[in-house]
Amino acid sequence: MSKFWSPFVKDLVPYVPGEQPKLARLVKLNTNENPYGPSPKALEAMRGELNDNLRLYPDPNSDLLKQAVAEYYGVNGNQVFLGNGSDEVLAHIFHGLFQHGAPLLFPDISYSFYPVYCGLYGIPYEAVALDEQFQIRVEDYARPNGGIIFPNPNAPTGCLLALEAIEQLLKANPETVVVVDEAYIDFGGQTAISLVDRYDNLLVTQTLSKSRSLAGLRVGLAVGHPDLIEALERIKNSFNSYPLDRMAIVGAAAAFADRAYFDETCRKVIDSREELVAELTARGFEVLPSAANFIFARHPQQDAGELAARLREQGVIVRHFKQPRIAQFLRITIGTPEMNQALVDALN
Amino acid sequence: MSKFWSPFVKDLVPYVPGEQPKLARLVKLNTNENPYGPSPKALEAMRGELNDNLRLYPDPNSDLLKQAVAEYYGVNGNQVFLGNGSDEVLAHIFHGLFQHGAPLLFPDISYSFYPVYCGLYGIPYEAVALDEQFQIRVEDYARPNGGIIFPNPNAPTGCLLALEAIEQLLKANPETVVVVDEAYIDFGGQTAISLVDRYDNLLVTQTLSKSRSLAGLRVGLAVGHPDLIEALERIKNSFNSYPLDRMAIVGAAAAFADRAYFDETCRKVIDSREELVAELTARGFEVLPSAANFIFARHPQQDAGELAARLREQGVIVRHFKQPRIAQFLRITIGTPEMNQALVDALN
Repeated sequence: MSKFWSPFVKDLVPYVPGEQPKLARLVKLNTNENPYGPSPKALEAMRGELNDNLRLYPDPNSDLLKQAVAEYYGVNGNQVFLGNGSDEVLAHIFHGLFQHGAPLLFPDISYSFYPVYCGLYGIPYEAVALDEQFQIRVEDYARPNGGIIFPNPNAPTGCLLALEAIEQLLKANPETVVVVDEAYIDFGGQTAISLVDRYDNLLVTQTLSKSRSLAGLRVGLAVGHPDLIEALERIKNSFNSYPLDRMAIVGAAAAFADRAYFDETCRKVIDSREELVAELTARGFEVLPSAANFIFARHPQQDAGELAARLREQGVIVRHFKQPRIAQFLRITIGTPEMNQALVDALN
Repeated sequence: MSKFWSPFVKDLVPYVPGEQPKLARLVKLNTNENPYGPSPKALEAMRGELNDNLRLYPDPNSDLLKQAVAEYYGVNGNQVFLGNGSDEVLAHIFHGLFQHGAPLLFPDISYSFYPVYCGLYGIPYEAVALDEQFQIRVEDYARPNGGIIFPNPNAPTGCLLALEAIEQLLKANPETVVVVDEAYIDFGGQTAISLVDRYDNLLVTQTLSKSRSLAGLRVGLAVGHPDLIEALERIKNSFNSYPLDRMAIVGAAAAFADRAYFDETCRKVIDSREELVAELTARGFEVLPSAANFIFARHPQQDAGELAARLREQGVIVRHFKQPRIAQFLRITIGTPEMNQALVDALN
């Protein structure tokens, strides 16, 4: 603590990201990255941008990418917001759309960055318990709130909420914003972007770090009613005019354009997930139903912390959250068949 | 305005960046970019990073770049903060170090993003008038404040404040943070980083968008006492774990390592500036003394707005700020000798 700090800084409890080990030979199943590289067309587009024009600022509105996203989802450019990873997009959402006095609602087991944002912007919140099967019960959100946010599929559980349930939530909650954080939607769910033209309180966020294999490039987005997007643009333009660099704009746009590669790699991840679920289930693990590129699993006889440590000793890293209700689970990212086999071997 | 907006959003007055025209054949002297491309070694480093590893998150602490900056300036890694452009670094500074109730002080003619940040974080401020020669008078800052910030050289004037004057300001103001925003320091000033070990209230910010020709890549930094850096790290880690992408980390580190290219291109810009000042002075312009990669000039017989419009018709864009005291000035970025000649020709 220092006398120079703004007072709130001393109480901040920052988010702790999954480890990014510098040892290349580890089998890294801890931060839900895609085991396949980005679209070769995205790499090619970036190569074309790697020249003296980097001396120039990027387009502050990233129009090329905004149009690519708008076309992909059949919405207008003014329904799309872009940011430096979906974490930055979420930060602006918390700042610009969730400060209404009443508590923000999100699941008790969810993306652990949500309470951190609340700390950053002084937003009160209530964590709403998932049910015994770790599912979101929409009726539990029928209470006064300053906004609602949840990942779909949820993280770290991987469980999907059906679009009909989301629609029910939107209808029951017309006075505040409902954010559906779709970081993992492409691995088994249907995007709620199909609902944005019917619900002016719906905002859907996505990232290019998972299904589009560009975690290293930092691009995220939100889609919703133009009025919600305008709040985010005002904040972005009062914070940093150019959050997306030139490489990110062209790389991300090319990734959205390459549907064939996207479909193929998502399919491979989904197939590997089903195989890994079968393997782990056969070994006595309980695995929650996953629509994501990770699974959430526990073993009735093995302590999760010890298991994670043992895996690490054998060069496989997974994520273990030491928090109530889920301390006996491991979150395991789906790798290539070879990476998954390394995990299974390390369990033996 | 929408009922969904956090209340402060409706009063936000966002920053307006200089135009980024999509017509490539314009002579672009409006946003203070470097006319020379980035270090070839920076481009080479980025080419080496353009591969399937982009599927992986970057190092959240950008240690490679932090070390490069620390070595360059002879400081420790815990005295360096990095962000997505110096605008993001400044945003976190306003949030984390300037919220003390008393007004923030900055020059009345200065970087126009400062009052925008104040709007974003609800920080009161007082604009302190530059003197008649558009210079900062440090004695005018001897008043109760929640912090002090100014660019050095100042923007859009280009005028430099000597290190001795900065030291005088630091000594007179030990209770709040003084931020020296050195976006343009490499074109004619001496960095105040030499003072950070002696003044725990000094924070120096820099960008790679100007002297290091990487505006398109988005990298900025701050150097100061570890306690000040810790406040910024707490905010960064409560906002976005990975603000620098993989390309930016390696490109910026390589740019810092290539001192020969940096020295050569800075020297060329400085030489061109002195030539352009002579040309404009000969044509009757009054040019403020500049230590930056731009000049601030007015003509006693020609209206600045009309002049800017006439230049634009001839394919040369410069920046004109319609604000008190400086409405008759144009801010002109220093280009290559050919670009500067195009400007001079367009004036005839």
